[in-house]
This record gives sequence, C-alpha cells and structure tokens, in this order.
Amino acid sequence: MAIVAVGTVAIDSIETPSASVHQVLGGSATYFSYAASFFTRVHLVAVVGEDFPAEHIEEFRQRGIDLTGLEIRRGGKTFYWRGRYHADMNNRDTLEVHLNVLADFNPVLPADYRRQPYLFLGNSSPQLQLRVLEQMERPQLVLADTMNLWIETQRDALLELLPRLDGLLLNDSEARLLAEEENLVRAGLKIRTLGPKFVIIKKGEHGSFLFSRDGVFVLPGYPTPNVVDPTGAGDSFAGGILGYLASDTSPPPGRLRRAIAYGTVIASITVEGFSLDRLKKATREEIERRLDEYRRMITF
Amino acid sequence: MAIVAVGTVAIDSIETPSASVHQVLGGSATYFSYAASFFTRVHLVAVVGEDFPAEHIEEFRQRGIDLTGLEIRRGGKTFYWRGRYHADMNNRDTLEVHLNVLADFNPVLPADYRRQPYLFLGNSSPQLQLRVLEQMERPQLVLADTMNLWIETQRDALLELLPRLDGLLLNDSEARLLAEEENLVRAGLKIRTLGPKFVIIKKGEHGSFLFSRDGVFVLPGYPTPNVVDPTGAGDSFAGGILGYLASDTSPPPGRLRRAIAYGTVIASITVEGFSLDRLKKATREEIERRLDEYRRMITF
Repeated sequence: MAIVAVGTVAIDSIETPSASVHQVLGGSATYFSYAASFFTRVHLVAVVGEDFPAEHIEEFRQRGIDLTGLEIRRGGKTFYWRGRYHADMNNRDTLEVHLNVLADFNPVLPADYRRQPYLFLGNSSPQLQLRVLEQMERPQLVLADTMNLWIETQRDALLELLPRLDGLLLNDSEARLLAEEENLVRAGLKIRTLGPKFVIIKKGEHGSFLFSRDGVFVLPGYPTPNVVDPTGAGDSFAGGILGYLASDTSPPPGRLRRAIAYGTVIASITVEGFSLDRLKKATREEIERRLDEYRRMITF
Repeated sequence: MAIVAVGTVAIDSIETPSASVHQVLGGSATYFSYAASFFTRVHLVAVVGEDFPAEHIEEFRQRGIDLTGLEIRRGGKTFYWRGRYHADMNNRDTLEVHLNVLADFNPVLPADYRRQPYLFLGNSSPQLQLRVLEQMERPQLVLADTMNLWIETQRDALLELLPRLDGLLLNDSEARLLAEEENLVRAGLKIRTLGPKFVIIKKGEHGSFLFSRDGVFVLPGYPTPNVVDPTGAGDSFAGGILGYLASDTSPPPGRLRRAIAYGTVIASITVEGFSLDRLKKATREEIERRLDEYRRMITF
C-alpha cells in the first residue's frame, strides 16, 4: 500500500567535529520518503523554491517517489538550514535557518493522493497537520511527528490532533514537555491517554520506546561505530516504520514491533553518511542483513 | 560457586526531586552483595567505622553474606556520602563526602576467601585492586569497576590491571575517557584491546553494551515507571551479572548475555526504592518474572 508523506524538502549545510558539507539535500519528507521507498510507493507533498537543484528532483524520480505533490514555487527559495553538531554527535546548534517558501506552505493534496491509505505528517504546526488530514478521504493509518515549539505554542491544536492519529512520534525531551512528566515510561503512557493509539518516543542513539495497547516495547539503537552525520535519523526512522507497516499485512502487535526494528536499522544506516549519501547505497538485502544482526545483538 | 566482593560499605544521605533520606545503608560492596546473593554466596571485603549500625550487620548476616572480611575499625567513622539528584534522575551532585575509614583501606583477604573462584573489584584505585587480586590464589573470573578519577590520575596502574581482568565495567563517559574516543562502540572495542576479555559499558537508564569475542551485544534499560533513587543501580547491575555467572555453568556466550539481562532487571528493581528498601523485598521469582517480561519487551 502507498504512503502520502507531508513535510519539508530542504537544503542543509552541516558541520560535524570531523567534516562538513555545504548545501546538501535534506528535510523531513526527503529522509522519510527515501527510507519508506525501500518498502513501498511514496507520494511526496512538500514545497521548494526555483533554486532547488534539478538533480535532486531526478534522484527522487529514480527512486520511484511520486512528485505530483511537490510544489516548485516560482521566484521562491528553498527552505535552508545550517547546523553544527557537538562532539557527542547528539546535540546540535542551529546556526542559520531561512524558512523561505516554507513560511506560507499550505499543502493542497492532488486528487489521487487523497485516496491513499497511509499518511505521514512530518513535523509542522498541528494546524497545518490537521488541514492535511482533513483532505484525506479515509486514511487507514496516520503517523505524525511533532516538536517542542508546537507543544509550547500550539498545545490546544496539538491536543485536537492527537485523537485523530494512529501514531505519534516524538523525542524524549518533547515527550517530557508534552506529558509534564520526567519519567519517560510514565510520559509515554500518559501521552497515549491523550488520543493516539500508539506513541513512539525517540531517544537518538539510545533507541526508542513504543507504547501501545500491547504494553511497552523498548529497543536500543543499532550500535554503529561509524556516525558521520545524525541529520535525518529521526525521519528515516519514521520512514522505515511506516514503509514497513504499509508493506506488511500480518496481525498488529508483531507488525508494529518489526516496523520499529526496521526503522532503527534504517536510521543507523542514514547516520553513516552525510545527507542521503549512505542511504542511497543501501539495498533491501543490506537492511535485512543488518536487521538479522541487530536481532542477534539484543537476544539473550 | 562463591564470590569475593571488595568495595565500599557506606552511609548515604540522598535527596531526589520528590523525597530524601538521611543516613541510610549504601556503598558499592553493599549493593553488589545484595544483588549477587539472589544467586550465590558472597564473601564481603570492606571497612566500616565503630559508628556502623549493628542492624545493618544483622541484615547482611540474614542475607547469608559472609562478613569475615568486614573490618570494623575501632575509633573510626564509616565512609559517608551525601548527594542530590537532578530532575532527570540521571545526573547528581555530591554535596558532601567523608572518606573516614576508607582513606587508608588496605584489604587483607581472610585465608578461605583467597581460594574462591569469583572476584568483584568494586571501584577503587587500580593499585588497591591489584593488591587484592594478588592475594587470590587462582580466580576463575575477575570483574572490576573503575571511574574517571583513576583513568585521569592512575592510568598506568589501570593499564597494568586491565590484562589481568576477565571483565571491565565502566560507564559511558568513563569509556570515552579511557579510550579517548567519542563513539561508544569504538570505545568499547578499543578498551577490549587493552586487555580485558570483555567490556561492559553502562549507560544508566539507557542500558548497556557488552563487547566480547562474540561481538557486540546491546540491551536497553528495563523501563521502570517508578524511579525513586538511582543510587546503587550500577553496583547491583554488577552483582546481578557476577552472581548469575557464578550460578550458571553453561557455555560462555549465552551465559554472559543472560547475566547482563539479569543485572539489568535487578538494577531496575534497586532504583524503585531508597537504599536497599526495594531490593530487600524482591524475590528470585519476581526477578524471573521481570526477566521474562523484559525479554518480551525487546523481542520483535
């Protein structure tokens, strides 16, 4: 089954302690779509400016990602982010951010997108996420990401969105903020009572928690010795999860757990290169091999 | 098989965001011994002052812990630590520390201790750890803990100790410091080349890594919603590991992995109360139940 992915397509400049890159392809919808495209067809919804390099358009196309919903704004400039990672590769500072065409992004879904069964709402304001959701005819599974900015400034809209989601994805500090609870297990359990059927808390290199009606599920990160650039880890994690879910029709509990394991493995591949460099070289076979290795690593 | 455990027996005063306790039983050898005593007999080596409450002595005895090696120093005062945990319950500040009798602790092992097969060297200077190790006749398995202080001030002695160990246990920041490597997977692999047969890196609530000849093994923390006091988590983790190893004689790889899982579960019980409050109420049956639940939580 196919996925509609709404989010950002960005140009990033990234500095890490050992290397840096200037103006590479980034954005939540980019990483999500690439990751999900290992499993299923993705229909992208995003906006870029006239400056967006044609080579990236071509890369999406070659990947089989449907770009009908990619708006190329005349006279506009693409969303730009520049950041620097700390020595621990977990924390980062934003050095520059230009919303550009993203500032008044108001996605209108193409007609055939509206009938698709799976929807990913990348991190954006809950109002925008609601507007997108309302354009879908009868989505079977909706997964949304959010961030501290919306929890702090648009809590009401977010609380309106939550009961309409199947899954909510957020990181540890965001979960603490939303639940007003320091302990992450309690935070996850509490957020689930706000509406989503399942909640996934991302802990970066430390892995993730899943809270669902089947209880608590916990996975460590895949221990890669080769972290080049953490950018896109969370979005490719989401892409692996929803991509796998869209491709597997077995009964729910095991399916969601396996999806998170796939997401974990794909995120670990993403961080082994800048931008999509490493993910582009990956194959479904490599993902399966790493998944098997990962399973062995956590089995006692 | 029995274990000799060398470390501290302390009096702690602890503040957390929600509660505090004054002058309770603590110390590395205390938590270690209690945890290990679920599996096997423990011979304790430590020093306390004349002020040490007789009730604690009685508690150790009731637990079946051999106190032949517990020196009660006349006129001395017991090692005292006072600390405060931050809101996240992961970081803490030491508010007060009085080494007291610990300042010139120079353990002399009782004759029948020297013949025991398992040895735990709780965190202390590597010189002291070496002196203890040299008193053992033919230990089958030696596990040692260390800390940043020794890595920074006694690196040479530590490097002399490492090849004589079976296992080294240290936390994430200590591993980075010892290996001079930010990435924890690389740090663990590098530390193993310094001598120990296996290296366990503790990541607090995020779980642990094991590096051994069988590769990398990674376990998340057990997700308890009820963290009351993290003190002693690392030492009861060690006690669960070595206690289980001493009680199981099956082939190595699976055995070490299972031991770490037991250590993880026991540490999660320890933090659910101050001092030994929660651990004292635990039973082997509860540990087995939680281990089963934990296994289900990480299986996909």
